[in-house]
Amino acid sequence: MREFVLRALKARSDPHFDITDLPSAGRMDVVCRCISNALFISNDVRRDTIFHVVFDGPSNPPKTVSFYGDSVKDLYFDELSIAKTLRKALSKKLEKDKIIESAPGVFVQKLGFEPLVSLKIKTHQLIYLHEKGADIRSVLLKKDLLFVFGDYIGMPKKTEVFLDNLGALRVSISPIMLFASHTITIVHNELDRRSF
Amino acid sequence: MREFVLRALKARSDPHFDITDLPSAGRMDVVCRCISNALFISNDVRRDTIFHVVFDGPSNPPKTVSFYGDSVKDLYFDELSIAKTLRKALSKKLEKDKIIESAPGVFVQKLGFEPLVSLKIKTHQLIYLHEKGADIRSVLLKKDLLFVFGDYIGMPKKTEVFLDNLGALRVSISPIMLFASHTITIVHNELDRRSF
Repeated sequence: MREFVLRALKARSDPHFDITDLPSAGRMDVVCRCISNALFISNDVRRDTIFHVVFDGPSNPPKTVSFYGDSVKDLYFDELSIAKTLRKALSKKLEKDKIIESAPGVFVQKLGFEPLVSLKIKTHQLIYLHEKGADIRSVLLKKDLLFVFGDYIGMPKKTEVFLDNLGALRVSISPIMLFASHTITIVHNELDRRSF
Repeated sequence: MREFVLRALKARSDPHFDITDLPSAGRMDVVCRCISNALFISNDVRRDTIFHVVFDGPSNPPKTVSFYGDSVKDLYFDELSIAKTLRKALSKKLEKDKIIESAPGVFVQKLGFEPLVSLKIKTHQLIYLHEKGADIRSVLLKKDLLFVFGDYIGMPKKTEVFLDNLGALRVSISPIMLFASHTITIVHNELDRRSF
């Protein structure tokens, strides 16, 4: 399985944003492009992929919305369609330790970045996508992978210490700084090449 | 220089489309994502890149809109912002052999795919991005490159013959079928790696 965790530090954690102005909602457009690139290929969905977004922006952080490639349905892959799906998920009333399915294959819960990653660490190889990491083309990758990465702001120093303590492997995908959404495409491409 | 030509067979060649429903405008969302991925990196524009879209959809095909990375200004990279820029370009009244600058670094002209490619062939290495081509990682690439590719429909047979006659090199970037927008990210990544 390929799992990704995007930490969106400014993206709104409530549904009060204008669908026609996603950049103003803490760069919700970046979040939507990441989801689209993670889940969709030409004429198909990546069924081996799970994509989590941790929303740390106002007004009710943190929340985690998770997309399961093997069960999403009727999800279209342009930014506006994905934003509508996110708005629906972020409008759900949440209780501690409860997960709500807001649309087929789309789940929302009151969960922050560190607890989410801690849940996965026993079963997944943890990879922190970072510009100064080892080149992905030369890294040994296991079967079950958890890629974590920041949005346009990057990760807070405290989170980097947390990831280091968990033994996260820092991996880079490019000699220049790219968008988070590009990063996902390149990670998938490397894994696709190794799968065939 | 890196130049790309996207042939958008169904994307509307007039400005009469709903900005909040880009998929219905002949998959204008795909076109917008391609432009975004071609031109923008984190905190910067790719100044060495020119991106052309040939619009072959209704109601006034063909038209070519070209984005010059070294001179675009005030262009934002979410789908809606790019769609607004395209709508403005497609609303211009065009005359044969005249080029109009519809926004800084954005040019529109009454030009089809084959004449556009023919104009570039003397100065550029012509590469046709195709799922059955040689792996991009093993291909010798020159300094000035022209990558041509189809949208979700692919290229018509007649166009493939045209490209073959020009000696276009068929190059693939993945063992599975990806979106045109993903293709651009992976091409840029390969070129970035070779530039450093």
